[in-house]
This record gives sequence, structure tokens and C-alpha cells, in this order.
Amino acid sequence: MTIDETNPEAPRPRGGPRGSYAKSTATRNAILEAALEVFAQGGYRAGSLREVAARVEMSEAGLLHHFPSKSVLLAAVLARRDEHSYELVHFEETGADPMETLGGLVRLAAYNASVPGVVELYCVLSAEATAPSHPAHAYFVERYATTQLRIARTFAALAERGGLQPGVEPGAAARSVIALMDGLQVQWLLDRASVDMAAELRNHLARLVTEPIS
Amino acid sequence: MTIDETNPEAPRPRGGPRGSYAKSTATRNAILEAALEVFAQGGYRAGSLREVAARVEMSEAGLLHHFPSKSVLLAAVLARRDEHSYELVHFEETGADPMETLGGLVRLAAYNASVPGVVELYCVLSAEATAPSHPAHAYFVERYATTQLRIARTFAALAERGGLQPGVEPGAAARSVIALMDGLQVQWLLDRASVDMAAELRNHLARLVTEPIS
Repeated sequence: MTIDETNPEAPRPRGGPRGSYAKSTATRNAILEAALEVFAQGGYRAGSLREVAARVEMSEAGLLHHFPSKSVLLAAVLARRDEHSYELVHFEETGADPMETLGGLVRLAAYNASVPGVVELYCVLSAEATAPSHPAHAYFVERYATTQLRIARTFAALAERGGLQPGVEPGAAARSVIALMDGLQVQWLLDRASVDMAAELRNHLARLVTEPIS
Repeated sequence: MTIDETNPEAPRPRGGPRGSYAKSTATRNAILEAALEVFAQGGYRAGSLREVAARVEMSEAGLLHHFPSKSVLLAAVLARRDEHSYELVHFEETGADPMETLGGLVRLAAYNASVPGVVELYCVLSAEATAPSHPAHAYFVERYATTQLRIARTFAALAERGGLQPGVEPGAAARSVIALMDGLQVQWLLDRASVDMAAELRNHLARLVTEPIS
């Protein structure tokens, strides 16, 4: 893909500001796609803005016009992935039934199998970002805490109506579900033919709850 | 630590070949410790031999005398970690009872909580190495396949004596155990106070088998 980067703020001959806006959005999207690929392949630390810029046939200065730093670009890539995820998984605060939330997690695992680049990025980044010095560290700490809280609440809501298997504690169940999803991604990336992430997650959930998983 | 690297192959004034051998082993161990820290912190791709050499106060050339390339050094770090692991987990082929193997996995999870640097390295590397171009890719593909096979055999041996919960399939159970262990490491690295890897693994195993976990 070629992107014209000569003075991106100048009014366009046709389309005016609206065309210019649409073009800028398309450019941002192209950069985010490229960044996802670059960071997924070599991790965030090893991936360079120069490489991202080269993939969209821009100069590094042109890229910095859209994303002022590597960590801002990373944050945008992660925010984009989260938007997609939340389209598939609805939590209690939006009025979802707890079994609908768990079904959403299974759908998310199935969807992930269609976007290996995203899974690679997430896998490498969540590992890299365990280091407190990593620019995405705070993001991942917060993301895991929020996800843990939301899934624990889902299991707690099930517990209230007798929907958990004996001995299942909501907090521990949430941790196990998140761990299983993360760990299956590594196995799937190493051997896609042998691992069905959605089926394995469904198996696991079936051992935690008493109601059928949609 | 300071390591004298002036002509490491020359006979020592005292101790002769035996002293020299011991010294070389100590040097190798110091390099492996440093490499583990460097690779754990920034991943394998971003970690440099120069940085490893600096930590043991050697030149890069001195380090290359012991480990001729970065990927050879990485392989040695991984082999060392595996040695430690296999001291804790005994598999069927060494005559271990299947419940002893599962108990060993719980002990391994507890041991890992005492070596955060190793866990960091493993976490970042297994994620990075999902890329086929990574020098440790073949190592991780083989390692996961072997571990999967061994743990599946453990569950199959339990199945033969009626030791599995209804509906538990040995292959899927093995995958879930490996996934859980991997995923818990990420959560533990992000929030050590809240995650007890050994306890969570024990909970999970208790839902798969009918016999008590030692």
C-alpha cells in the first residue's frame, strides 16, 4: 500500500476536509495494521518505528505525525484490539446474563483463531510487559485486574443462583479462565492444527458451572 | 563479579587443568546467570551479547569464547532451566506413579515462584519463539510436544485405573494443565501478591482426577 504523505494537513483538491479526514483515518488504520504485524513478529522492544513506517511506505517523520511516539502507537494498537474483544464479550454491567458472558469468552477464543497476528502481539506483549519498566506495563496490570474483576463477578452471579460446581470459588475460577485462555494461545501459535482454543475453553468452563454454555 | 579473561585456555600457575576446568565452569555459570537476567528482562531479541558480557565484566570476544553465538547461549540457558525442572517432576518412563508426576508439577509451580527471573525468561521467550523465524522456535515446538505427550500419558495411566473424573480426556487434560501453568505465570509476574500458582494448579488438577494430590 502506498500512502501520499506530502503535507497531510493540506486541503485536498477533491473532497475537502471530509475527504482529508477519511484519508487520515485510512492512514491511521494502515499504520495500526502494520504496527500490529511488526510488534507481533518481534515484540514491542525489538520492533522499530522505522520498520512500521517502511511497511506503509512512509518516512518515520510522516508516521510520527500520526503517532507521536512508539508507546502512543502501542497503546493505540492495544486499544483497537480491546474494542474488538468487547464487541464479543458482554459483562454484567451492560445487563448481560453471566452465562452470556461465558459464552462470549468462548466466541472470543474462536474469533482469536482467525487473527493470528493479534494473538501473537498479545502473547509477546503481555509477556514483555510483565517487566515494570515496559511502557505497556501499567496497561497490562490494569487490564488483567479489570478482566479478573469482571469474570469473578460473573462467577459470583452464577454462585448466587447455584450455578457453580461444588468447591468452585469465583475469584480462583476467573484466574483459571484467564490463565487457560492465555496459555492456550501459546500452544495454538506453536501448533495450530492440534489446538482448538474455543473447545478447550468450553471444556474447562463446563467443569466450573452447572448451566449449559451457549 | 569479576572474571579474569586473559587467555582462559592457558594452564594456571596453581591447580593445573583441574583448577582451570573449575574456573571455566564457574565462568560459564556466571554467563548463564547473566544471560538469563538479560533475556528475561527484555526478551531474547532485544537482549544483546554485549549486555551479557558487561554484566560479567568480560569483553564480547571473551564471552564468544565460551558461547560462540547468541542462539547457542540461549539454548544453554533453556537446557539449564529444563534440568532444574526435571529434578522436580518425574514422568512415567522413570517408573513414577502418575499421581507422583502431577504432584511434581505442583512442586514445580511452587519452585517457580522462587525464581522470578526464570519465569520471566520463559514467559517472554515462549511467546517470542512462537514466530517460526525465532532461533528457539524448534526448541519450543519440541518442548511443548514432548511435555504434552508426557502429561497426556500420565492422565492416560490414571484413566486406566479409573482415576479421572467423568468426561476428562487425557490429551485435553494435558493441554489444559500446560496452558494453566503458562497463563498463571503471566498473572503472577503482573501481581505476585494475589496469585498462588501452586494452589491454583492444585485446584485445577483436583477437578480432573479422583485421587488425592500429594
